[in-house]
Amino acid sequence: MSVASNPYGPNPADFLSNVNSFEIIESTLREGEQFANAFFTTEKKIEIAKALDDFGVDYIELTSPVASEQSRLDCEAICKLGLKAKILTHIRCHMDDARIAVETGVDGVDVVIGTSQFLREYSHGKDMSYITQSAIEVIEFVKSKGIEIRFSSEDSFRSDIVDLLNIYRTVDKIGVNRVGIADTVGCANPRQVYELVKTLKSVVSCDIECHFHNDTGCAVANAYTALEGGAKLIDTSVLGIGERNGITPLGALMARMITADREYVLGKYKLHKLRDLENLVADAVQVNIPFNNPITGFCAFTHKAGIHAKAILANPSTYEILNPEDFGLSRYIHFANRLTGWNAIKSRVDQLNLNLTDEQCKEVTAKIKMLGDVRQLNIDDVDSIIKDFHQETTTTDAAAAEANGSEPPQKKQKSE
Amino acid sequence: MSVASNPYGPNPADFLSNVNSFEIIESTLREGEQFANAFFTTEKKIEIAKALDDFGVDYIELTSPVASEQSRLDCEAICKLGLKAKILTHIRCHMDDARIAVETGVDGVDVVIGTSQFLREYSHGKDMSYITQSAIEVIEFVKSKGIEIRFSSEDSFRSDIVDLLNIYRTVDKIGVNRVGIADTVGCANPRQVYELVKTLKSVVSCDIECHFHNDTGCAVANAYTALEGGAKLIDTSVLGIGERNGITPLGALMARMITADREYVLGKYKLHKLRDLENLVADAVQVNIPFNNPITGFCAFTHKAGIHAKAILANPSTYEILNPEDFGLSRYIHFANRLTGWNAIKSRVDQLNLNLTDEQCKEVTAKIKMLGDVRQLNIDDVDSIIKDFHQETTTTDAAAAEANGSEPPQKKQKSE
Repeated sequence: MSVASNPYGPNPADFLSNVNSFEIIESTLREGEQFANAFFTTEKKIEIAKALDDFGVDYIELTSPVASEQSRLDCEAICKLGLKAKILTHIRCHMDDARIAVETGVDGVDVVIGTSQFLREYSHGKDMSYITQSAIEVIEFVKSKGIEIRFSSEDSFRSDIVDLLNIYRTVDKIGVNRVGIADTVGCANPRQVYELVKTLKSVVSCDIECHFHNDTGCAVANAYTALEGGAKLIDTSVLGIGERNGITPLGALMARMITADREYVLGKYKLHKLRDLENLVADAVQVNIPFNNPITGFCAFTHKAGIHAKAILANPSTYEILNPEDFGLSRYIHFANRLTGWNAIKSRVDQLNLNLTDEQCKEVTAKIKMLGDVRQLNIDDVDSIIKDFHQETTTTDAAAAEANGSEPPQKKQKSE
Repeated sequence: MSVASNPYGPNPADFLSNVNSFEIIESTLREGEQFANAFFTTEKKIEIAKALDDFGVDYIELTSPVASEQSRLDCEAICKLGLKAKILTHIRCHMDDARIAVETGVDGVDVVIGTSQFLREYSHGKDMSYITQSAIEVIEFVKSKGIEIRFSSEDSFRSDIVDLLNIYRTVDKIGVNRVGIADTVGCANPRQVYELVKTLKSVVSCDIECHFHNDTGCAVANAYTALEGGAKLIDTSVLGIGERNGITPLGALMARMITADREYVLGKYKLHKLRDLENLVADAVQVNIPFNNPITGFCAFTHKAGIHAKAILANPSTYEILNPEDFGLSRYIHFANRLTGWNAIKSRVDQLNLNLTDEQCKEVTAKIKMLGDVRQLNIDDVDSIIKDFHQETTTTDAAAAEANGSEPPQKKQKSE
């Protein structure tokens, strides 16, 4: 088996896969505004839009201009920034909304309507024939303005598959740019996603966009599997902020995708700006970066158990699928604890510019583990144990050497 | 389509699926101890073990007794608690470790060895024939003591498939209770997991256990897909704590599994104790519950956008796949923001025991959205807008009624 081959890359059996040609529709300024804590001023929206654009996202999706007067003005302001990313706004499938949306200067409109029995009964109360007619009217109107149009069902995974395929085929024929699948309640699982996307791919010729909520923790995996099945675009938000516990997080998706196609991801997105982007949004909505966040969680590149530390010191790929340097970050070997091993301690001894044999390193490691059993250690604790041990051994060596009439070794380090 | 049917339940095509008969190997006290911040005293380990047992996990896995002297003593102490859950300890594939492990009183031993080219080259430096011989020796020894034995490869997804199947078949034939697949670096994706588990299932007759790291955000989805492919046991830790950013979190897996088989999960695990369990561990390792944690994140059941709130008020299933009551939690309609809709405001008007028509609710909603455009709102802001509006309208009504010589309506609320 060659180490150079990448088994996490696109599966050659997936001839429909877009794992190495995906695009991001970044929805921090739409889905993210639905996060409980979110209130973005115009200035903050502009700052976030510029940061997303700089990061390299393909599309930026904004709250409907119908949501409030300021939402409309902000949408216009962001359209005027001249960003590289295309600007979208997200509206209900109503002509009232569409007429206002197309006047904001956006590059495209994302239209959504609930198609599940739940939403048809308890939300808008319309049947599929009404939905189809509204969709056609809105799509033809938006197209007549020469801008992009996406039609998405809402709650797609609880919608009737025949209803879905019918309406998608219809809107595809009248020329939408994209159709969207939305796991609005976060119930979908990966193999189900793959099947639905693959089936839809056989029905439409336009691109497929997917939107996954994270209620059951599968939003990243579902996005990946959707790309494998032939979807092209994934909706994300920074840190995943959105309704309830949110959607596919931009950072976690980057972690997933760089594992599959490092060259594509590095060539397209400025990954070393991810941490700043996440901090910007976290500050704006007053949350902490989750301790276990992929890539930027405080210990995402920290290795602790002795067996891990030993191998990481020999070759980081042993216990890392992500390279922290790709994100402007660095790895850390956590050696100040009772699970530590002598290889990690030896590495620390070298960092301290001390000189101990392997046997001596094992001996001092035993002392460190003993103290680690009693209480939580910090680096200073370990360093003083090492230094004390080093002083003892060199003093002993010096005494032995003097007794033998020879020069004591490592004299220069004795007085530290 | 019947709403009663559950499309997220076991797929009838998956005759190997254990989605409705899975078990949990809870590793907060082993994998979790490898989390950067973890230092558990004996008392804290016992408290966590009791809480896990009370929650209903099937197995509790403990740090190797070889890691440190206190680790060994703690292992013995937890074995003596007489918990319902079976107690396991996790060791390297060495007779030195096995001899100590079997003396602790555990119900079983989890043995692991690196089988990937990376680990064979940079960690232990052994070839497959040596690995197989060690495995046989350790397994037969542990079996001779009459306790359970699991054999797992490490870094399974970067191991040669032929090597893997060979060693798994060998250890299955000599009678291990379980074989384990470990995504040690967090690189695996769901369809790859499904394929490997399904293939392995055709080779061994024992149970299959899976261990997924979360570096690329797929640990929950991979666990679910593994169960679909025929795995029986999933390793978890509370909040997912472990090496780097950790493994499949217990809570998120519960969210995923209850969506698939509510009856099984509710019958087996005390879900209403999940929040306390997470708080116990979060306090012990000094982290905050992530804002976007499934189930227990502060806004996991908060609905904000007007269109969502409207439907949730009519039927919570419209935008919820999880029922907060199953976890002893409650939902919250976030109405104090510019995305709010008149249905949410009308519901608040009712809660305040005021009387406004639908038209009046729409009018006051417009006022609330206007202020919501200017700044972040809290509930008090909205309540005073509603109350002021109500007072105005009732005063106007009263004046109009007096002019007409009739009784002013709702007089009792005028003076508030």
